[in-house]
Amino acid sequence: MSIAGELRGLLGEDAVPERVPARYLVDETESRGLRGRADAVVLPRDAGQVAEAVAWCYEREVPIVPRGGGTGYAGGAVPLDGGVVVSLERLDRICSFEPLLWRLHVEAGVTTGDVRRNARESGLYYPPDPGAAEQSQIGGNVATNAGGPHAFKYGATGAWVTGLEAVVAPGEPIAVGGPFRKDVAGYDLKSLLVGSEGTLGIVTAVRLRLIPAPEAAVPVISAHASTRAGCDAVERVVGSGLAVAALEYLDAETMRLAPGPFPIPDRAFVVLAEVDGSREEVARLRAELVDVLGEHAIAVHAPETREEIDALWRWRDGVSLSVRASRGGKAGEDIVVPLERLAEAIDATAEIGRSHRLPSCSWGHAGDGNLHSNFLLAPGDADELARAGRACADLLELAVRLGGSISGEHGVGTVKAGHLASHRAAAVLGLDAAVKRAFDPKGLFNPGKKE
Amino acid sequence: MSIAGELRGLLGEDAVPERVPARYLVDETESRGLRGRADAVVLPRDAGQVAEAVAWCYEREVPIVPRGGGTGYAGGAVPLDGGVVVSLERLDRICSFEPLLWRLHVEAGVTTGDVRRNARESGLYYPPDPGAAEQSQIGGNVATNAGGPHAFKYGATGAWVTGLEAVVAPGEPIAVGGPFRKDVAGYDLKSLLVGSEGTLGIVTAVRLRLIPAPEAAVPVISAHASTRAGCDAVERVVGSGLAVAALEYLDAETMRLAPGPFPIPDRAFVVLAEVDGSREEVARLRAELVDVLGEHAIAVHAPETREEIDALWRWRDGVSLSVRASRGGKAGEDIVVPLERLAEAIDATAEIGRSHRLPSCSWGHAGDGNLHSNFLLAPGDADELARAGRACADLLELAVRLGGSISGEHGVGTVKAGHLASHRAAAVLGLDAAVKRAFDPKGLFNPGKKE
Repeated sequence: MSIAGELRGLLGEDAVPERVPARYLVDETESRGLRGRADAVVLPRDAGQVAEAVAWCYEREVPIVPRGGGTGYAGGAVPLDGGVVVSLERLDRICSFEPLLWRLHVEAGVTTGDVRRNARESGLYYPPDPGAAEQSQIGGNVATNAGGPHAFKYGATGAWVTGLEAVVAPGEPIAVGGPFRKDVAGYDLKSLLVGSEGTLGIVTAVRLRLIPAPEAAVPVISAHASTRAGCDAVERVVGSGLAVAALEYLDAETMRLAPGPFPIPDRAFVVLAEVDGSREEVARLRAELVDVLGEHAIAVHAPETREEIDALWRWRDGVSLSVRASRGGKAGEDIVVPLERLAEAIDATAEIGRSHRLPSCSWGHAGDGNLHSNFLLAPGDADELARAGRACADLLELAVRLGGSISGEHGVGTVKAGHLASHRAAAVLGLDAAVKRAFDPKGLFNPGKKE
Repeated sequence: MSIAGELRGLLGEDAVPERVPARYLVDETESRGLRGRADAVVLPRDAGQVAEAVAWCYEREVPIVPRGGGTGYAGGAVPLDGGVVVSLERLDRICSFEPLLWRLHVEAGVTTGDVRRNARESGLYYPPDPGAAEQSQIGGNVATNAGGPHAFKYGATGAWVTGLEAVVAPGEPIAVGGPFRKDVAGYDLKSLLVGSEGTLGIVTAVRLRLIPAPEAAVPVISAHASTRAGCDAVERVVGSGLAVAALEYLDAETMRLAPGPFPIPDRAFVVLAEVDGSREEVARLRAELVDVLGEHAIAVHAPETREEIDALWRWRDGVSLSVRASRGGKAGEDIVVPLERLAEAIDATAEIGRSHRLPSCSWGHAGDGNLHSNFLLAPGDADELARAGRACADLLELAVRLGGSISGEHGVGTVKAGHLASHRAAAVLGLDAAVKRAFDPKGLFNPGKKE
């Protein structure tokens, strides 16, 4: 019997589509040519079924590819060479929500948007905002330690996780951490699973801590004549001790490709900062921010109305899609550099694009030194794809040369596979491999990823 | 030749005392009867010498016991059965401090106090305040993921670490993370080393991120007629969405044993909260806090002057020593429970003390559900020590029964060794053991700890 057939017998017909729907073979890397192949997709109803599916696969040495919302940019959810895609979409229950205790316990398939909305409706705040909030799922956010603009002040997903439930080899459900906020009993397996991209196990539920929602949050945007001038403004904000919540940049080319709903001159380098807190605090910080960003700026604008502010963040959230739409495809990497090397990394992105004859642009989380450097391409054009591949490799080399990291929040997935060796010392890679073997001796969890 | 003699030949006479000074055989658990035995102590001058010492030991299968300031409460730094104590005290250099970029890179032997002072002098803030700041060292803070009162708002030590340098088996210096704030390339070995209590490697340097110092921070204290009433006040603070920086409790017995410099009725259950932020913000939050804590309180007091506030925190910092001084010795555990079980855990501490005929008291980080539950004893009284041991075992069981953890911030060390099995499922313990083998195949790093 086929793998799908046997799994249907095990988990029920509703849990295993007869044929693998095409959407389970791709993620946001599709436009750079990545499409996988799977023997089956399973849609478990609960963690018990996840464990059953994993046990079945583990015994038979069938690769297991966990899948959240499929919004990743690193190909982490793409089944490279057969095996079983385990999609968590039906694990979408809220296990418990205790707003008076600032705690939310959800299954892995709950969307980031639902997590944030639930918090908000009770006056609480779940800060991580990695984007694509209506598609991306909390389990996937955990698996990549997803970041987003507000990670600058609040940290990435892992900073909000107090407990995890997961299924590990050979099909064992485990729980680490819990509904408490501190825990040093045993090794920090929770943090190890965070960002492990499904290569150590499958996250089935997440316990989150929340905080009281800030009363207000307002952005300030400034436009600058050059990358250098914009990055100087970013460093001025940090150096002034202005504790902003988000500190983003969009280079001039990004602004041209994704024109925004705000009065900023075209083709300028833009800095987007946000302050949050009480209304009084926000008013004070906003004025300081206007001063600090405004110095040497072409223009500075601080939206006042709720509508204008919401529109701004909606637009920011859509930048990646707008950029992709300009030529139909894009390939990029989310490299990280020390803050003082940001301008250099942004300019080098353009340089690399030119050297490979590809239009390029970059934007990202300036305060965290986290660039989204992208090359635009026509999907299906093999020559452009090949050049984009080489340009991306140059980006990763650039990150290492500038003393940074090859991934800030998207993960290694498959698109950066093979590049860790240039970034991590042999002894560290040896520990990575030993940790992988400790969790997954048969090497069946998401093979070909994060290595 | 003796181990010490050979190491003197390798590292120089200044790095290996001829006889092991007694202070390297104990930590804060001395009064509960814990004293170790070592073949030698080495005081490396730099990370290179740490690597040499580890390589020498690892080749010869000699146990390696890393040591920071020796202020631990779990016996983590105590050499249980010979081997070489590696004290990091001479690794006390500040590698780099870039206040305009909010970054500090220090060697492991720099004291917590020096880290905090350096930050402060440049208008920055390093929030973790685990206590004993002038003795405890940042490397030890990392090794235990040390917490403290302000972990409620700001998280424990690990939340501030962006990079680590360490020496791992068989004597290999490694670096993970770096001077950047986000990194998902490779597994999160940094977080795995944080809180690993020297059982996976020796931390030799730490890269910290800092934040702008809050303009002001003021405490509010309230006294309550019972544990229940005090814990209700704690839950009211959280439930009101008051984002306090610290939220502590001291039970009536603690208050009796460590009388404070403030006008609160004796033998009352005390809640100590602190708010921080801009001056205006603090004034507003302080007023709200006085309201929320004051409801149903016997008394509420909000110190106004810098002197009064400093004296209060100095006193809080000294509570553990005052409590110990009352009978000469104490044995306690830093259990964690979900916030809503705090009152139950505090009352159960007294119950456990009574059942083992030992005076008891507890205080701790209420907002984090982290108790320091202690039993007072006369050091050297074997019968009392034995009863205290049983009482501590009851505490750990209590934590598990209430859905918590056996350690919030002190670590497992040796005093909780053997108790992990009641707390962690077999599959999780299996992963712990596999991770340990991955880092330390010969089992030489801090043997007998965290297991």
